[in-house]
Amino acid sequence: MSDSSSPVSERAPAPAVILVAPQLGENIGMVARAMANFGLSDLRLVNPRDGWPSEQARASASGADWVIDGARLYASTAEAIADLGLVLATTARPREMAKPVHDAEAAATRLAGRIDAGEGAGILFGGERAGLDNDDIALADAIVTFPTDPDFASLNLAQSVLLTGYAWFRARGLEGGRPRAELPPLAPKADLERLFEHLEGELDTAGFLFPEEKRPSMVRNLRTIFLKAELTEQEVRSLRGVIRALSELKTRRADTGH
Amino acid sequence: MSDSSSPVSERAPAPAVILVAPQLGENIGMVARAMANFGLSDLRLVNPRDGWPSEQARASASGADWVIDGARLYASTAEAIADLGLVLATTARPREMAKPVHDAEAAATRLAGRIDAGEGAGILFGGERAGLDNDDIALADAIVTFPTDPDFASLNLAQSVLLTGYAWFRARGLEGGRPRAELPPLAPKADLERLFEHLEGELDTAGFLFPEEKRPSMVRNLRTIFLKAELTEQEVRSLRGVIRALSELKTRRADTGH
Repeated sequence: MSDSSSPVSERAPAPAVILVAPQLGENIGMVARAMANFGLSDLRLVNPRDGWPSEQARASASGADWVIDGARLYASTAEAIADLGLVLATTARPREMAKPVHDAEAAATRLAGRIDAGEGAGILFGGERAGLDNDDIALADAIVTFPTDPDFASLNLAQSVLLTGYAWFRARGLEGGRPRAELPPLAPKADLERLFEHLEGELDTAGFLFPEEKRPSMVRNLRTIFLKAELTEQEVRSLRGVIRALSELKTRRADTGH
Repeated sequence: MSDSSSPVSERAPAPAVILVAPQLGENIGMVARAMANFGLSDLRLVNPRDGWPSEQARASASGADWVIDGARLYASTAEAIADLGLVLATTARPREMAKPVHDAEAAATRLAGRIDAGEGAGILFGGERAGLDNDDIALADAIVTFPTDPDFASLNLAQSVLLTGYAWFRARGLEGGRPRAELPPLAPKADLERLFEHLEGELDTAGFLFPEEKRPSMVRNLRTIFLKAELTEQEVRSLRGVIRALSELKTRRADTGH
């Protein structure tokens, strides 16, 4: 793994993703891709069925090469987690084990606390067919499960990693580092007032704000529409242009008798 | 779609998932599966490249058959959203469009408010290669984007739907006990389309949408103003009245020479 090929953010401490007896290289690659989306890079493989390295894994990682290149191979789950403190086990639904059960968000918060304390931490994911067996779960400190429709609960391996990574990324507050959406400045209220007066003046001329006793509520409702839109200065100018264009159209129609 | 084959929870009102120009049937199937995980079932396809129905889609839906069977086909994005109120567009990153930008959680909360009010709502997803184009995004009320590592930001189609569904499912669960928000009903998109066509027709007559090469962006900017306002049916009627009042002569006035 070369430093120059990996994004800066993947060097920030983050939990390990431990895949226990994964089957298809393609799925391992999709896991690597999902990890890269959310700043995870420490991939550990326990007895991958189809061997390692895997060209299918690299192909389906869609460019997350540093995760694939840095992946480490282990002969048992115990060895794969030997250097880690907090270890969580993902299951499709809570099992009959006396362990705390977290949702992905609570799990991410716990992991972040440990990582912040300078410890290693990790999350176990089972293979495609059967998930983690009870011996693997027994090694973990707690269980992570995902809320899904009970009638259609199964998530595939890469999907589980994706949701875990997403929760991690949000708990970490890493999204705070991304460039903020540049919001265009709102028009000052004085510009809005001139827009409203322009519109209402033309509508008075057209006899639209009638009868008189309904005028205040009609004006209020129209102003509400444009206030809800949170107009920019440019948009106020555009609307002024629209009002002028429509009013002049009427004048033209009057001149030509249509 | 038979009632007996679909989970109970999928019948609860939920947003539509609208795929615009998706390419591979396999990916449509993975979208259907991700939808089923989180109680979504209204799948709408705009011009799927490889046609519909698709055996690949069914195979990769992993049993979410009721989503595949219920999918509806449309020739344009506008038709696919014509009956919906709030419509959000997913993009990899915020673009230079003056629309509100939400993360998945804020989007889910907004959608839940509208669904609670008994309205249709939906989320637009672009095809695998290029995502949504600007004309599709212009149809939406707001943009949804996902926090990801800026150095490895790309999510595939099914992953984007998965994160959206997950946020929806959580928002739904968290909000279960909340009293309904009393929101006035949004106008269906078909009403908005008629409003836009009315306005643009009059502006064309007035020579305002000129020169021709600027017309598309002028139209898009005007539509954005009114989409941001989240118009009710009553407000659409008011604006139609305003356009008529500004641009048309009353017969009475024309007859009397004013």
